[in-house]
Amino acid sequence: MDRPRHFTLRFSCPDRVGIVSRVASFFADNGGWILRSSQHSDEDSQRFFMRVEVRADSLDFHLSELRRRFEPVGRELDMDWQISDSAVKKRVVLLVSKQMHCLYDLLERWQSRELDIEIPCVISNHADARGLVEWHGLRFHHVPITKDNKPEAWAEIERLFTESGGETMVLARFMQILPADLCDRHPGRILNIHHSFLPSFVGAQPYLQAYQRGVKQVGATCHYVTPELDQGPIIDQDVTRVDHGDTVRDLVRYGKDIEKAVLARGLRHHLEDRVLISGRRTVVL
Amino acid sequence: MDRPRHFTLRFSCPDRVGIVSRVASFFADNGGWILRSSQHSDEDSQRFFMRVEVRADSLDFHLSELRRRFEPVGRELDMDWQISDSAVKKRVVLLVSKQMHCLYDLLERWQSRELDIEIPCVISNHADARGLVEWHGLRFHHVPITKDNKPEAWAEIERLFTESGGETMVLARFMQILPADLCDRHPGRILNIHHSFLPSFVGAQPYLQAYQRGVKQVGATCHYVTPELDQGPIIDQDVTRVDHGDTVRDLVRYGKDIEKAVLARGLRHHLEDRVLISGRRTVVL
Amino acid sequence: MDRPRHFTLRFSCPDRVGIVSRVASFFADNGGWILRSSQHSDEDSQRFFMRVEVRADSLDFHLSELRRRFEPVGRELDMDWQISDSAVKKRVVLLVSKQMHCLYDLLERWQSRELDIEIPCVISNHADARGLVEWHGLRFHHVPITKDNKPEAWAEIERLFTESGGETMVLARFMQILPADLCDRHPGRILNIHHSFLPSFVGAQPYLQAYQRGVKQVGATCHYVTPELDQGPIIDQDVTRVDHGDTVRDLVRYGKDIEKAVLARGLRHHLEDRVLISGRRTVVL
Amino acid sequence: MDRPRHFTLRFSCPDRVGIVSRVASFFADNGGWILRSSQHSDEDSQRFFMRVEVRADSLDFHLSELRRRFEPVGRELDMDWQISDSAVKKRVVLLVSKQMHCLYDLLERWQSRELDIEIPCVISNHADARGLVEWHGLRFHHVPITKDNKPEAWAEIERLFTESGGETMVLARFMQILPADLCDRHPGRILNIHHSFLPSFVGAQPYLQAYQRGVKQVGATCHYVTPELDQGPIIDQDVTRVDHGDTVRDLVRYGKDIEKAVLARGLRHHLEDRVLISGRRTVVL
Repeated sequence: MDRPRHFTLRFSCPDRVGIVSRVASFFADNGGWILRSSQHSDEDSQRFFMRVEVRADSLDFHLSELRRRFEPVGRELDMDWQISDSAVKKRVVLLVSKQMHCLYDLLERWQSRELDIEIPCVISNHADARGLVEWHGLRFHHVPITKDNKPEAWAEIERLFTESGGETMVLARFMQILPADLCDRHPGRILNIHHSFLPSFVGAQPYLQAYQRGVKQVGATCHYVTPELDQGPIIDQDVTRVDHGDTVRDLVRYGKDIEKAVLARGLRHHLEDRVLISGRRTVVL
Repeated sequence: MDRPRHFTLRFSCPDRVGIVSRVASFFADNGGWILRSSQHSDEDSQRFFMRVEVRADSLDFHLSELRRRFEPVGRELDMDWQISDSAVKKRVVLLVSKQMHCLYDLLERWQSRELDIEIPCVISNHADARGLVEWHGLRFHHVPITKDNKPEAWAEIERLFTESGGETMVLARFMQILPADLCDRHPGRILNIHHSFLPSFVGAQPYLQAYQRGVKQVGATCHYVTPELDQGPIIDQDVTRVDHGDTVRDLVRYGKDIEKAVLARGLRHHLEDRVLISGRRTVVL
Repeated sequence: MDRPRHFTLRFSCPDRVGIVSRVASFFADNGGWILRSSQHSDEDSQRFFMRVEVRADSLDFHLSELRRRFEPVGRELDMDWQISDSAVKKRVVLLVSKQMHCLYDLLERWQSRELDIEIPCVISNHADARGLVEWHGLRFHHVPITKDNKPEAWAEIERLFTESGGETMVLARFMQILPADLCDRHPGRILNIHHSFLPSFVGAQPYLQAYQRGVKQVGATCHYVTPELDQGPIIDQDVTRVDHGDTVRDLVRYGKDIEKAVLARGLRHHLEDRVLISGRRTVVL
Repeated sequence: MDRPRHFTLRFSCPDRVGIVSRVASFFADNGGWILRSSQHSDEDSQRFFMRVEVRADSLDFHLSELRRRFEPVGRELDMDWQISDSAVKKRVVLLVSKQMHCLYDLLERWQSRELDIEIPCVISNHADARGLVEWHGLRFHHVPITKDNKPEAWAEIERLFTESGGETMVLARFMQILPADLCDRHPGRILNIHHSFLPSFVGAQPYLQAYQRGVKQVGATCHYVTPELDQGPIIDQDVTRVDHGDTVRDLVRYGKDIEKAVLARGLRHHLEDRVLISGRRTVVL
């Protein structure tokens, strides 16, 4: 059974007495049935983070009216707030290179409606994924990236993302470094899966680095992309056990399973509007 | 830095619109600074569960006055509610047999104040633990249990528990089955650590059962004790990997580490008033 | 870099002094370079299990000659033995129903050559998977199973398996119970992924059972199929954490990730000739 | 039931054809019953590592004679080899500071004979642990370390270690950095538990570093101590999940459980002569 249609409010604001009361009263006064609610007070930044799901059919007005009515509350409490509608599918653009395990994994979740999203297109710097993507009835764009065409290629990718109405960009093992200005233009909207347990093994060939250091677990990290390589806020991460008998090739293979699971989990949290950014950290409500 | 003194309200009640608002407004009207709040709507039972921590120094009255003021809210919403004070240490009685790994573990957490509790006494059906317990300055009661003296022995244990002001009884690898009527008299107050991943391997020698079945992970389960053996609501559980080369003895050894960690985690959740019982399940807020 | 071509000997035999010496000397006398070797003495059954990988290019004769030369050793030590060649791809037939997460997952591993196997065909009691399978250039057989046609349907499935040269049958979330006689005819050759942490929650709807019991972890188990439902020797299993807020639907979703990973790991162990059956248990060398 | 008395041979040597055969034949010729055997070929260094357990009562001579007979084999194959006797308890000196969770944990394992070792003494730069240690009937040495007395204090610690016949030194949350020359004098004999998942968060206050980076798992690492801080070969490591709601204090608390388990596991591997050092990596047979 599917969950009922709901609106999701999320916000952060300076912490003070009475925030929950103000928000809860707002919904109660409008007859709103709260399905889920969670919150977090950050002691360092003195900010308060909250996420509330309200049944759409418990309100007798539409989303735009909800936003209009909530606006004074947001202003009063100096909130950074958003409200989304579970009936509106998020638009997610996937970027891949040659390795396709994350792509296969996301496509299966999409076709089985585990991930209830629109995929306006898949973009790649290689042509390998075209067949699979198009077989799924999705658009595929091949944008080769070379030493000499980086600015043009990235401009083209950003144009495809924007023109297709993309809201979230997922680097599903996309083996290219994004230009800093592109990262800056889409804060909190670009997710990457890095194939190490950050902050260990930043940069290239993390499994080789892990092998050489002789670690006994390898991992993967899903994080928001920021201009500094592999330094963005972490959404989720996980590890798996390895031993001395495993070659770099084995680590790569074990890592694939962690990468798939962690990217899918991080993406789902993001799409459910659970992830709020707090400096270098994330609050996952 | 320690957390500030706080009062913890927890309750369950029939679900309806406006509960959070009512509770949050109550605290806001009294100037209460909410440190943490979490909640859960159970779709099956249509009940609502909530836990709220309020800074004690944000209210200008005492716990008894807080309870008096909250009473009408509880009645109005048909709540089953309690409020506790973080400054009042919970009184926890430990029952052990011959194996002492959980006892050592809990004593270390107590002496380092990781577990900020009173231990009015430790009770055992064997004398082995006396020295360690008394070295820690705690009272030790040896109550031998034989085939022939069970009713008397259990009456003595219950008397010791009650007269020492015990609120929570922890079976820290206590290898005796509790009488059903004793379980019934202390619902939600007796915790056990069972040395298997329930519901697998109920009853005696779970590690031997696990070995014979050839499982690839063994586990432990912390649960409330109810009259039916190993059937009470589960608070926490965990597992660890084993392989064909491990003997029953090895499984027992690996299991000890899981038992210690799971019992300590479950006990902590219980002591922080995070655990609410919902039929055969627990809600851990 | 790929691993060099190798022959894999695996055997079990009654335990006694000198087995390793006899086997190692056999290879040394023939110039065989041992890449990997592992072994296990089972104390209960007094049997010895061993697996040895030898570089093919270190021997100056072929597999058939290796088998001929080893035959007296096997007879002398009363071995149950087999030798396989890493250059010969195993033939694996997949059976699926409507859920396709394991199928997607295995197809990706096959196309990326992580699993270096032949898939002579995919068989399903539903038509849903046809498109995906055929897009990959693989044969798809739709064999509907109804209350009334079970014997015929199963005869057809077994015929397709046998005629396509299938060596291993993988039930990749195939939601039908196999006839006992079919299981008996293919011991140690049929793998299933059961969507619970066996022996908990045998049979139908394990996630619903898990939800109702209120467990704090759910799991999946890869095992050989035997005539008794969900009782076969376990190859691998794993779990993931859940909490009170997770619905049955959530457990199903988390479970999918565990199912994929555990099935792939168990299948890989099987295909690498690492798994020897010892009564109800497996030895994974 | 205890394991039978056994001799454990471990060695590394240049890889070549026939090593296993040579070693296995040696034991077979002497009637040796091999209980366990495991091995590893390191492709990078072209070295071969092996560990063999032989039942003591299957040989009709003593350990010294075994060593004498094995000596030519070791020379022939250019081995770095050792043979130990399970009936001879290893002598382990513990160093602790103020935090006692690892000390409690190791003492419980020692008193229950899970760790079958001698503890000739416990050394600390603080007096806090004296009571607990002495209650267990063990010697305690308080060696204060200040800015001004480091060379003398370390000389004293090394003297106590050596004079008490210590073979292994365990830094069980000992919050002082060892002098490089002391590390150099005892290679592969000093174990540390570092409270992070190395190579992340080297040095001081790793949990604070982890909190600030916003990781979603924290860990601990058991490694051999070498002159470079936190860079020695890793024996074992593990992690546990944390979230945005956890304070540094919570991370410290979760970390304690991981530290205890990882140190105990790493120490056990070391004491069972399973750990061979291969450059910056360990081979755990």
